[in-house]
Amino acid sequence: MAAKKHKPLGIAIVGCGTVGGATAALLTTDRNIIESKVTVPMELRYIVDVDFSHAREMGLDESLFTDSIDAPIGDADVQVIVELVGGVTFAKDVVEKALRAGKHVVTANKALLAYHGAELYALARENGVCIAFEASCAGGIPIIRPMNEGLAANRIDAMFGIVNGTCNFILTEMISKNKSYADSLADAQRDGLAEADPTLDVSGGDSAHKLAIMASLAFGKKIDFEKIPLAGIDTLELCDIGYGETLGYVIKLLAIAERQDDGVSLRVRPAFISKEHPLAWVSGPFNAVSVYGHATGHTMYYGRGAGAKPTASAVVADIISIGIGTAQRSFELLNIWADRCEPANQLAIDEVQSRYYMRITCADEPGVLAQIAAILGKHNISITSLLQHESPQSAATTVPVIITTDKAREGNVRKALAEIDALDVIKAESVCIGIVEEYPEEL
Amino acid sequence: MAAKKHKPLGIAIVGCGTVGGATAALLTTDRNIIESKVTVPMELRYIVDVDFSHAREMGLDESLFTDSIDAPIGDADVQVIVELVGGVTFAKDVVEKALRAGKHVVTANKALLAYHGAELYALARENGVCIAFEASCAGGIPIIRPMNEGLAANRIDAMFGIVNGTCNFILTEMISKNKSYADSLADAQRDGLAEADPTLDVSGGDSAHKLAIMASLAFGKKIDFEKIPLAGIDTLELCDIGYGETLGYVIKLLAIAERQDDGVSLRVRPAFISKEHPLAWVSGPFNAVSVYGHATGHTMYYGRGAGAKPTASAVVADIISIGIGTAQRSFELLNIWADRCEPANQLAIDEVQSRYYMRITCADEPGVLAQIAAILGKHNISITSLLQHESPQSAATTVPVIITTDKAREGNVRKALAEIDALDVIKAESVCIGIVEEYPEEL
Repeated sequence: MAAKKHKPLGIAIVGCGTVGGATAALLTTDRNIIESKVTVPMELRYIVDVDFSHAREMGLDESLFTDSIDAPIGDADVQVIVELVGGVTFAKDVVEKALRAGKHVVTANKALLAYHGAELYALARENGVCIAFEASCAGGIPIIRPMNEGLAANRIDAMFGIVNGTCNFILTEMISKNKSYADSLADAQRDGLAEADPTLDVSGGDSAHKLAIMASLAFGKKIDFEKIPLAGIDTLELCDIGYGETLGYVIKLLAIAERQDDGVSLRVRPAFISKEHPLAWVSGPFNAVSVYGHATGHTMYYGRGAGAKPTASAVVADIISIGIGTAQRSFELLNIWADRCEPANQLAIDEVQSRYYMRITCADEPGVLAQIAAILGKHNISITSLLQHESPQSAATTVPVIITTDKAREGNVRKALAEIDALDVIKAESVCIGIVEEYPEEL
Repeated sequence: MAAKKHKPLGIAIVGCGTVGGATAALLTTDRNIIESKVTVPMELRYIVDVDFSHAREMGLDESLFTDSIDAPIGDADVQVIVELVGGVTFAKDVVEKALRAGKHVVTANKALLAYHGAELYALARENGVCIAFEASCAGGIPIIRPMNEGLAANRIDAMFGIVNGTCNFILTEMISKNKSYADSLADAQRDGLAEADPTLDVSGGDSAHKLAIMASLAFGKKIDFEKIPLAGIDTLELCDIGYGETLGYVIKLLAIAERQDDGVSLRVRPAFISKEHPLAWVSGPFNAVSVYGHATGHTMYYGRGAGAKPTASAVVADIISIGIGTAQRSFELLNIWADRCEPANQLAIDEVQSRYYMRITCADEPGVLAQIAAILGKHNISITSLLQHESPQSAATTVPVIITTDKAREGNVRKALAEIDALDVIKAESVCIGIVEEYPEEL
């Protein structure tokens, strides 16, 4: 039995950069693909921008171009505004204007939702429309839908994500080619995989935006983005990557969310993860998110976390969901949206419980290890392995001592390392990197 | 703004084995998890079975037990029948009865859908209800939703799945412990990871059921399950796993679907896959499915493909989707369901184009390689590598020759090997295993 004909869904794209252009192409050049799958016609009616050079290069239909957001806002045949402007100022205006005009919003804007998600969801609800944002986290990977519906029967206990392709590419270069951070960054910039100013990526800020959005849905709690502790990859040294490797670990920039005690621990940082964990295999510009549900155990979602076409794929998936009405129902009938949730009890960084890797630079003298061990013991930190390597330089008077610990409270670890670093026999600031273990499944 | 109250969704579970019991537990014991996320109350009203020993052991509410399917069928407050009986006879009766009574159906029954999907979808449509089956493929992994909505903007070009946990466990044992197939199967049976009669799993039949369901959605075509060529893992020899490893490959039982020429090639078989491919890392009882979309490129979905709780997680996800109305809209407004699709042009096995691994057992004499190479050349098969190993036994008069080929047509490969095996210098039947390459992304 064939499906009956439906009224078209009118769409306006605001912002025609790489993602906007690819979205327009999926809706026009590739429209036969969508038409073969979806009975509701998708009608792109406007492309809004002030600069159409990219749109023209792509050969997009010029009759769709307008430089005024008011055109689609005033058009009763437009039901969806796609915000691909980026940033949190003009983009916020566009989204608010669209919602107030009773238009659904699709956005890829992670910063906007990390800062203003709850407020915008509430505004959407007041106006009887919804916001969909599959493209905001992990690009082309359908990761928002599992949080909402696919894993809906689960209490989600933890989430570990590699959600920044730039950082993962740089780390993969450092590991596989034994290149410094600076050289790897330069190569990423040359290949268009890192911005000229890479700060937002390499500092962990971009990963934290995504973590805030995903953790909010996963835990059904409002997340305060400003409270997520960040550490970036820009201070990582090659020698630690090497020592970690001999211990069976791979370094990754991880966005971490875990239930712990009565709260949730959220953090972004470079961390060691066992070579046996599927996330350890995720290399180059790829992204992946591991999600642990109490019933389903470990699930993982893998794919391209950025790029014009993968991101556009996620944008158009949301447009289609609005076209067939599933996005609206999920937005209306689930309770996981930040405007309907209590604030999460976000644990301070000192409360985090984790295993740790430490590299301590000691004078090559007797009795040093005893002093270090005594301080760790005093702070309730158990040592699980200790490697004292020979000094890399034959004439050196210092040696690196590599210690891994059992689970400990991060506050205690910081205090212990401050005491250790104050010893006369310690010749440089100690390095400390978290170790993420496979989350225990309850099954 | 809190969500308003909704009428409960009435549910009956038919079949209370391990999955049925775990589903009932998620809806009762763990109901606070669902209640915190979903504004529509989920009300389990009946558990239908003839034997309640498992249900009693689990401490499920005995007032729900009934041995008659007619109780929920006749209850106007039941909107969803969950079929967890298994098999294609009584289960089909249950599903048909439920659909005719205007009840939505949730099922985990891959065989039923592989054989009768199109017919049952049409019956559901006639009665204004839907069928949801997230749990039928890859257990707890939300894999059906990406096919339907998450990747809806994509022309899906290929799909490679490890979708049978029993086989993946056996192969992981063979590889990691260098144990024979028979010993690994015995261990899997001892650990409850293989049935007493493992035929359906190890023959590839179970994987083919899942492939038929997923490929139908991915390609938007009706699939004839009977036309899927099968090869199982039961004839694999350890030595081939070892030779493959030295060439950089891991053996996996793969369910493969590819667009090719004007048709689709579907097949289930043990195949070599590069160690660099994410599927190579999937070990033990885990499942994973790689899906290649024209816009999103490579995405992969990983998790537990079987087990009571993971499967129940997927069953309850479907119940929730029906509760909030998304499953109905997807079923009504997408065109990908087999009852709405043309039959796929399923290529015969001889038409498959693939790379191949061959092990040819030759007499240790001069001129043998020349004869083999001549026959391969005659059938348009290019050699990409050739390894002649020393014989494992010092006194042996035969040597194994390992050949990998460029892409070739399987029909040509079969003809060539038949000619090779007929040579006087060939001392045993040659072994031939497909090599699956990373699917080229279009991005």
